[in-house]
Amino acid sequence: MSLLADTVAAIRPLDPAAMAAAHARQATLTKPPGSLGSLEDLGVRLAGLAGTSPPPLPEPAVVAVFAGDHGVHAQAVSPWPQEVTAQMVANFLAGGAVVNAFARQTGAEVVVVDVGVATPLLTDAPTDAASAVGSRRPRLVRANVRRGTGDLSVEAAMTRDEAVAAVEAGIRVAADLVDNGARCLVTGDMGIGNTTPAAALIAAFTGAAAADVTGRGTGIDDETHGRKVGIVQRALALHRPDPGDPVGVLAAVGGLEHAALAGFVLGGAARRVPVILDGVIADSAALAAAALAPDAVGAMVAGHRSAEPGASVALRHLGLEPLVDLGLRLGEGTGAVLAWPIVASAARVLHDVATFDSAGVAEK
Amino acid sequence: MSLLADTVAAIRPLDPAAMAAAHARQATLTKPPGSLGSLEDLGVRLAGLAGTSPPPLPEPAVVAVFAGDHGVHAQAVSPWPQEVTAQMVANFLAGGAVVNAFARQTGAEVVVVDVGVATPLLTDAPTDAASAVGSRRPRLVRANVRRGTGDLSVEAAMTRDEAVAAVEAGIRVAADLVDNGARCLVTGDMGIGNTTPAAALIAAFTGAAAADVTGRGTGIDDETHGRKVGIVQRALALHRPDPGDPVGVLAAVGGLEHAALAGFVLGGAARRVPVILDGVIADSAALAAAALAPDAVGAMVAGHRSAEPGASVALRHLGLEPLVDLGLRLGEGTGAVLAWPIVASAARVLHDVATFDSAGVAEK
Repeated sequence: MSLLADTVAAIRPLDPAAMAAAHARQATLTKPPGSLGSLEDLGVRLAGLAGTSPPPLPEPAVVAVFAGDHGVHAQAVSPWPQEVTAQMVANFLAGGAVVNAFARQTGAEVVVVDVGVATPLLTDAPTDAASAVGSRRPRLVRANVRRGTGDLSVEAAMTRDEAVAAVEAGIRVAADLVDNGARCLVTGDMGIGNTTPAAALIAAFTGAAAADVTGRGTGIDDETHGRKVGIVQRALALHRPDPGDPVGVLAAVGGLEHAALAGFVLGGAARRVPVILDGVIADSAALAAAALAPDAVGAMVAGHRSAEPGASVALRHLGLEPLVDLGLRLGEGTGAVLAWPIVASAARVLHDVATFDSAGVAEK
Repeated sequence: MSLLADTVAAIRPLDPAAMAAAHARQATLTKPPGSLGSLEDLGVRLAGLAGTSPPPLPEPAVVAVFAGDHGVHAQAVSPWPQEVTAQMVANFLAGGAVVNAFARQTGAEVVVVDVGVATPLLTDAPTDAASAVGSRRPRLVRANVRRGTGDLSVEAAMTRDEAVAAVEAGIRVAADLVDNGARCLVTGDMGIGNTTPAAALIAAFTGAAAADVTGRGTGIDDETHGRKVGIVQRALALHRPDPGDPVGVLAAVGGLEHAALAGFVLGGAARRVPVILDGVIADSAALAAAALAPDAVGAMVAGHRSAEPGASVALRHLGLEPLVDLGLRLGEGTGAVLAWPIVASAARVLHDVATFDSAGVAEK
């Protein structure tokens, strides 16, 4: 079988026994029942994912920033020049982007994955992905499948083979990181123009109208936004993507980083490690992952609610409630990194907190 | 002058020049303008508080858990026995409570302040508050003003002198912590029955109806909730607290930990260090602090939105938007500790992120 098929086959439902044990444990801890709100459910879900209660602490955490370019940039869907993708990759590797600052603050690590940047990257950054775990210096994974997608408004974004190659690149990154010690995967993305394919993917997988899932990305005016909605509509009309064929959807209207992120989610789910979703790009990729393996949703944690309208549509479709909601619309993994200490705290409760018995605290 | 009067007099508005500088700096950083949502405003506000841009990183952070008991417990407003307050103080000092787990995860420290626990505390915990900064072991500050309040439904909770003493105890804790290196203060509370005085304080300071600000605390049934609303109404009718006399309001319907938390907020504001508010207890105390010194609001960061209805009423009155909203209703400082890495990240952006110029990234 292929790596993709093997990975999908390895993804199993949450373990009900571990979830029941975690749920029962919550009730013995020195806090009123239910007083940790949705963090109690999250702790239970992490136990179900790990198959054990208490679940392992989700650390170390690694943010993988998947970078790619987009042929649809030619339709002027973004005010930013395409070379900003490669320039930002260099910025990530130099530690100068917001995701680096947030990762530094929270103690997460950063890996950058070139899965589809248009221009060759010149950098002296270390390129051994596995050794990133435990390292403070961002590393580059070279996994370029194609130097930018085709323009989805007039042609397929990529071939099926390229889509599978990108998905498998994401699976490999997840596998390498987990095999080398990572216990929480955090999604990141970079790609000028990448909210357009994200909107098309969300429309294709959820059935929502283009106008309801197409946002303003990094900040575009009304005229550009109107054109962007029209482009998403045109792409959907041209390719008629079938949500029953997720690889076909990714190939027709996706992006290389979107496909790789779908694989990254699948890779984490197969290894039963939580994957914190960042914003609308990750959410659109998560829809593809869920279409390929519905049980992969068990490994997903919605880090934050992006200001992009498609993000909320995608999260609702996945049945996920985000942990942080601060109006962020940056991508890179920034919202997901902010959520990571919360995810870790939800797990830590089940490890560290004394029981009523052990602490000698009276019950009500 | 008194410590309280001195402290109030020392509280000044946010510095507009530092805010303008931080705002201008945001625009030069390698991210689309506004893409960090409310974190950009938070970073600007931290600069205004510190009077410099970039603002100092708000670390180390110390959670001060103010503990007290409540005469109104006699009215059966809580299903928990009163001795749980002292038992939980012992649990905090032993590191076994949820706030300890969250503090451990995020790197904050914990200090417990006995400002009004009914029963004497027997503990071998270290009692030097100042040395808590940099320590991993929770410490106890002994500042008991009175062994629990009077029953606010039939008498004043405390005298004016006791209220001032509790406020000043909170000021002293804030001052000691900041003078010994803390750069972020995090509010915590423990006190069986303390959501009843919180509701009364919020009603008194905002003019809201008792029924709109009285919640279910740690989890009470409909009958108890109805009785609790009636008790808050009765207390307000009995004392007719005047929001123009904040100390009088605290004395009539407050709690010792509420008064001390008001002082803690004032102490942080006077030293221009951010104070992250936890849930409804801290929010009610923040109303008292704002009534004493309106500019103290500039130092307040709303850590999370408690599930208690009064919390949202109080935050709206203060004009604060919470950072985290996960249905928590535990207190102890748990919601505020979860928010601390987000606050720190908002400040760190202004330190660490490269500018378009320095990173060689093209602008749109």
